[in-house]
Amino acid sequence: MTVKTISIQENILNANDSLAAQIRTWLTENRVFAVNMMASPGAGKTSLIERTISGLSGKRRVAIINGDTTAASMDAERAQKVGALAIHVNTGGNCHLEAFMVRSALDALDLSGIDLLIVENVGNLVCPSGWDLGTHRRVLVASIPEGADKPYKYPSMYSGVSAVVINKVDLLPYVPFDMDYFRKGIEALNPNTAIFPLSCTTGEGVNAWLEWLERQMAFYAG
Amino acid sequence: MTVKTISIQENILNANDSLAAQIRTWLTENRVFAVNMMASPGAGKTSLIERTISGLSGKRRVAIINGDTTAASMDAERAQKVGALAIHVNTGGNCHLEAFMVRSALDALDLSGIDLLIVENVGNLVCPSGWDLGTHRRVLVASIPEGADKPYKYPSMYSGVSAVVINKVDLLPYVPFDMDYFRKGIEALNPNTAIFPLSCTTGEGVNAWLEWLERQMAFYAG
Repeated sequence: MTVKTISIQENILNANDSLAAQIRTWLTENRVFAVNMMASPGAGKTSLIERTISGLSGKRRVAIINGDTTAASMDAERAQKVGALAIHVNTGGNCHLEAFMVRSALDALDLSGIDLLIVENVGNLVCPSGWDLGTHRRVLVASIPEGADKPYKYPSMYSGVSAVVINKVDLLPYVPFDMDYFRKGIEALNPNTAIFPLSCTTGEGVNAWLEWLERQMAFYAG
Repeated sequence: MTVKTISIQENILNANDSLAAQIRTWLTENRVFAVNMMASPGAGKTSLIERTISGLSGKRRVAIINGDTTAASMDAERAQKVGALAIHVNTGGNCHLEAFMVRSALDALDLSGIDLLIVENVGNLVCPSGWDLGTHRRVLVASIPEGADKPYKYPSMYSGVSAVVINKVDLLPYVPFDMDYFRKGIEALNPNTAIFPLSCTTGEGVNAWLEWLERQMAFYAG
């Protein structure tokens, strides 16, 4: 007699994906373009979000869902300070956001008039990769001091991303970083990913990133 | 009638802790001092390991267990190149090492004559925190470009560590970093943690770290 096996992890992922699909449909119908922004701790997600909100100011309205493992809400406060609608999600120690957490945050946000929703995931280069959050695009934020080997060492995270931002290029004179090796690692995993070298400190390169976002918003948010 | 609840996670953690205690006893009996080295991706664990092996060369023998989420074994190879006994553990996507993985690695390593075992955990500031690996000390490697807010944002990882290395101090002229705020965040979680600002690029500050390791080894490895 064969024993029936219940794959709990598989069922959880299926439930997550089905909720994520509902969220994506709802966002599309409401003309909100949504991005799942993922990165290692300290790569500069929050700084990029600040630059993005300021850069789109007067043209587009932005909302932020900020995931953290604790009650520390300083990132959401930074986004709010520069003019975005922001909400903080405490994952209670969980190492990634899941679709149900985004769904709860959406219940608490009024997205009318919002063009761009950035979901700032937990700072982590392993756990967020398998979890669809119902966004239209996944974006990875890397940074020069992390080193150029990261696409090779964290391939699950670097796979399936629509754009990679490589932040802190102002540190290139002081840190060894082989940009060609980094690009090749990304291109081997995703032939069509857009790569944006930029600095949130100096502002260099930020416009190309904003233009990419604008093209996505023109399609999804009108 | 009350329903019986089985706490799978709790049982897994108990099994891990019991195996970790066995590993620690075995290492102590064999006069090997062991460190669980944890960090965000790109903080410089492998560079610190290279500096440590070179700095102890001729005085102490070092072995490395290098945890990665994939088959990419470049970190273990770097350690081997500078003279350490090294083994690579592929966690198969798992976001942290567990005691049974260290146990398997120890079965494959001949530790006779080894004074220091460094277990290089998966680059991650969330998941490794709850898992005792059977080492004597937990060390966290942070880096200047990550920002001074990390002890406040990842308190589970910064709790219970015996030492914090703050790497890449050569970048202090180019990156805003409030060392006092960083130190206060660590001290609020662990009043007795040793903090070592250093640069694996220039070598500045590395000696104080080596002296700390030497004091631990004098106690455990003789």
